[in-house]
Amino acid sequence: MHRHISEQYELELSRIRDSLMEMGGLVEQQVINACAALIDHDGELARQVREVESRLNQFEITLDDQCVSIIAKRQPTASDLRRVVSVMKVITDLERIGDEADRIAKMAIRVAGSEMPAHQYHDFREMHKDVVTMLNQALDSFARLDTENAIRVIRADEDIDDAYDKLIRNCTAAIRDNPEDVETSVSIMWAGRALERIGDHAKNIGEYVIYQVKGTDVRHGSDVKED
Amino acid sequence: MHRHISEQYELELSRIRDSLMEMGGLVEQQVINACAALIDHDGELARQVREVESRLNQFEITLDDQCVSIIAKRQPTASDLRRVVSVMKVITDLERIGDEADRIAKMAIRVAGSEMPAHQYHDFREMHKDVVTMLNQALDSFARLDTENAIRVIRADEDIDDAYDKLIRNCTAAIRDNPEDVETSVSIMWAGRALERIGDHAKNIGEYVIYQVKGTDVRHGSDVKED
Repeated sequence: MHRHISEQYELELSRIRDSLMEMGGLVEQQVINACAALIDHDGELARQVREVESRLNQFEITLDDQCVSIIAKRQPTASDLRRVVSVMKVITDLERIGDEADRIAKMAIRVAGSEMPAHQYHDFREMHKDVVTMLNQALDSFARLDTENAIRVIRADEDIDDAYDKLIRNCTAAIRDNPEDVETSVSIMWAGRALERIGDHAKNIGEYVIYQVKGTDVRHGSDVKED
Repeated sequence: MHRHISEQYELELSRIRDSLMEMGGLVEQQVINACAALIDHDGELARQVREVESRLNQFEITLDDQCVSIIAKRQPTASDLRRVVSVMKVITDLERIGDEADRIAKMAIRVAGSEMPAHQYHDFREMHKDVVTMLNQALDSFARLDTENAIRVIRADEDIDDAYDKLIRNCTAAIRDNPEDVETSVSIMWAGRALERIGDHAKNIGEYVIYQVKGTDVRHGSDVKED
């Protein structure tokens, strides 16, 4: 009987994890599209991102509901419980990443009609590349429960923060040199901040991998050691 | 036996809820102090906010852990489970509000040395007052499981969004008129955005009150009706 329940639990949890990965793939695509829309002044692509946003919200509600159900029905304990709690936490982070992509898409719509020299996007483009890589690694480490990769993700967040500081410095200087163009520079700053937050959420996902596998909470700069 | 378990559960959950309320009170104070530090150019107060931040992180880890324990030990179902899941969700929102207060404190430290005419803070001051009221109501509705108050909190978020749009418009105009002062205007914009996010988190808390009491998920603009 116990074994039967445990098999059912594994089956149901693995279905939830599959849906979570599907949600993760969609979120990744949203970030990529939102940034492309901003860089290429592509208002149409930005509007598509905004439409897909509601699907992510639906994913969040459905997945949260499935997690609560599995806890109520299967009453997991110890590491089984940690696994489903981690899924619930990651759902929130993915949904928030979707919100940030939506914010970038809003900026993209705002600047779509304006002319802007491509070099202004240099810092944003670099930052975007690194954040997408980080998010991809975070989801991959979650899918495989790969703690080494998760630790790399957690550490990568510092580089993102540095890149963000550089973007802010350069945008501020651009506004000072060219004050009539304040809206567009401010849009790049907002979008950069959205990327910085996406980096934070990717880091959170990395931390939940460690929590799941090792049962330790490494949030807020507790020791992250490779072993 | 069942009754005994249920009494134990109630006792433990009510202890967790008390700690959550304590965390909520601390978070509220952080928001108030961070904004006062920014408005009054009080670098010392801002540094105090930044120091308290680590206590909030500790609250998050401890409370999360207690929630996982209570689920594992007491195996709650239905509305009992919803109550502890709501607490877990609110912990995350409170911790994120703490992060936003910390961001405002960072801005406050940055501008503490500079001169700035008080009128520049007009929009921020108004917005701050409304956000603090909203957060206070959100925590109060969570403590009392007061759905009517929770619905008011959810609705108040739209006013905060409008106030934020106004702040951004005025700051953008101020930068155009006075480009050498870009850093300070940008700081007010960042701080305003932090307040807007705090409003979002307060709204989330309101939504978890409804979820707890009625078992329905009202996130992402599903119907919010008074009854």
